[in-house]
Amino acid sequence: MNITHIEHIGIAVENMEEAIAYYENVLGLTCYKVEEVADQKVKTAFFQVGQTKVELLETTDPEGPIGKFIAKRGPGIHHLAFAVEDVAEALNKAEESGVQLIDKTPRKGAEGLNIGFLHPKSTFGVLTEFCGKK
Amino acid sequence: MNITHIEHIGIAVENMEEAIAYYENVLGLTCYKVEEVADQKVKTAFFQVGQTKVELLETTDPEGPIGKFIAKRGPGIHHLAFAVEDVAEALNKAEESGVQLIDKTPRKGAEGLNIGFLHPKSTFGVLTEFCGKK
Repeated sequence: MNITHIEHIGIAVENMEEAIAYYENVLGLTCYKVEEVADQKVKTAFFQVGQTKVELLETTDPEGPIGKFIAKRGPGIHHLAFAVEDVAEALNKAEESGVQLIDKTPRKGAEGLNIGFLHPKSTFGVLTEFCGKK
Repeated sequence: MNITHIEHIGIAVENMEEAIAYYENVLGLTCYKVEEVADQKVKTAFFQVGQTKVELLETTDPEGPIGKFIAKRGPGIHHLAFAVEDVAEALNKAEESGVQLIDKTPRKGAEGLNIGFLHPKSTFGVLTEFCGKK
């Protein structure tokens, strides 16, 4: 696979409004979009920081993945997403290397990108995502 | 403050050698440096991914900050570092905005950069670092 940059960093937050205010007023970043991803039971907010986006994630359902993450670990950094050209190829390559996949094939994520997740048990505790247009 | 990009993402690992092998052989990234930061009781390994570095952190002492983090939460993403021009100015601005600081003034970190940390209690659970040449 050819990883070109870090596409985004996903951060689980309990209160989106308060978190956006911190990233804007303290860090001086600009929230350019708020988007709900019904499939993942989250509301997302995006900030561009150089090549990489900061993606805040607030659950819309306590039983969704972000709701469960916060219940177990509290708010904080949730996942790391690498930009690749071809998500299916990157997932196949990871599986061939012995990595356990969460997504066997790409699915649609926020911002219209194809995405796929690797299981943190296989990636030294880091929930890892591939993101790409293909 | 003027954040230009994400300088690095710090990842706590239990076994540096195995983690480097994963980042190199599975993800296709290249470790360009291993450096011990005695002050922080860690060994670090760096990978450049576009504008941003992935920084693996292995403790050299169970009582060091990374040792304690892993004992409590397991391995995984540890902190997020933003590149700023002037670390002292960024720390002052954060404190004026009501953020609790870990470092009141900049100190030297890996790669010869000035660094300063914000307390995760004030940053919605994200251990946040400023990094810069000044």
